[in-house]
Amino acid sequence: MTGWVAVAGLGPGDAALITPEVTAALGAASDVVGYAPYVARIAPRPGLRLHPSDNREELSRALSALRMAAEGRRVVIVSSGDPGVFAMAAALFEVMEAHPGHADADIRILPGITAMLAAAARAGAPLGHDFCAINLSDNLKPFTEVERRLRHAARGGFAMAFYNPRSASRPHQFARVLDILREECEPARLILFARAVCTSDERLTTVQLADALPAMADMRTVVIVGNEATRRVGRWLYTPRSVAP
Amino acid sequence: MTGWVAVAGLGPGDAALITPEVTAALGAASDVVGYAPYVARIAPRPGLRLHPSDNREELSRALSALRMAAEGRRVVIVSSGDPGVFAMAAALFEVMEAHPGHADADIRILPGITAMLAAAARAGAPLGHDFCAINLSDNLKPFTEVERRLRHAARGGFAMAFYNPRSASRPHQFARVLDILREECEPARLILFARAVCTSDERLTTVQLADALPAMADMRTVVIVGNEATRRVGRWLYTPRSVAP
Repeated sequence: MTGWVAVAGLGPGDAALITPEVTAALGAASDVVGYAPYVARIAPRPGLRLHPSDNREELSRALSALRMAAEGRRVVIVSSGDPGVFAMAAALFEVMEAHPGHADADIRILPGITAMLAAAARAGAPLGHDFCAINLSDNLKPFTEVERRLRHAARGGFAMAFYNPRSASRPHQFARVLDILREECEPARLILFARAVCTSDERLTTVQLADALPAMADMRTVVIVGNEATRRVGRWLYTPRSVAP
Repeated sequence: MTGWVAVAGLGPGDAALITPEVTAALGAASDVVGYAPYVARIAPRPGLRLHPSDNREELSRALSALRMAAEGRRVVIVSSGDPGVFAMAAALFEVMEAHPGHADADIRILPGITAMLAAAARAGAPLGHDFCAINLSDNLKPFTEVERRLRHAARGGFAMAFYNPRSASRPHQFARVLDILREECEPARLILFARAVCTSDERLTTVQLADALPAMADMRTVVIVGNEATRRVGRWLYTPRSVAP
């Protein structure tokens, strides 16, 4: 039997948001690898080996998947959300580049509902006009690069979605992000803190930039900053599709 | 019976990319409204009324859905891709704002696989690092705003995804977009033209910016411009997760 690797997005947490394509790949798999909390979302069954691993082990996990596929196994690498957005797909290609012997591996990337779009849907349509997605973690890039992108996103009039806004290892950085936003945007700019979207722990909070506090975000939060036209209607938050000439 | 409106994302075209949540909403619906090519993707069944409408009729379509819900009907507004990304969700809230009598309507936004993420998955992981999504149509904003956003996205080091890059009514504008990119980016910058992704007409083409031609895009194309680190590995296109300090 020929082995393969599928990098699959499990969406934000609700099984009703997992595509049939991903469900079919999981049903055909011999092995599932991924960060332990994501692997924990996969129902065990006979013949399926689960390989949970720690955070920040993306490269060794991807190499392990390619090696198993070369042995004929059918491997699904699970990501939360969409595998192409700050997740495992890019890590797999980094490993393939470093290990050219796997260049012909049978690989499929299976998209999923990424956190910012799930959060936007729960809140209304805050990403209804041009927007940016920025990973605020400085694990893989210097914070100066985060700052440069924040300023260009604000000056370009983009709404913004932030992944990994704050963690125990870098608690002070998100305060700096809010300071930068306050330098670039008006105090009434609306910010959505969407925590654990589409799970039983879901909590959505919208505040003005002037009232935003670093503690409103944690690693389970996606933050969406509106553009200057983003507004509320009833209980909803949305960004109009138009920009006046 | 109490009426409701669900704004549902059908994904890029393949039924295997429609979430179970959207399938359930369609199964419970009494009425489906939307742009005719999207309504054509819904299987007819007894008791389901289909209401196809023309492009650029977003506001009248949304108002019609709210009025049907007020009469107790169960209405799904269908969008291609994700309803929150350059699609019907923002249009619905614009209408709600203009018609406050509908402020208490029972509304749900059901996310879907948006075109840029489906295209990215088919090509590899070109949006694997910070990126922007820009609607190139100037139907609802002046082209000067498109230009401002392009320049900030390029100077911020973002990868970019373009929706609605080119249409019969504005054939020359995408040539101008390519000119702006050539002013801001190096000639070897990689660009993906992803046409009709996840349909039988799918065609993926990656070229360097220097070789990009306006005719490579049409209204069924999503265009993804890599950042300066975006590269090929085997048949894949990907953007590394890291930025060197």
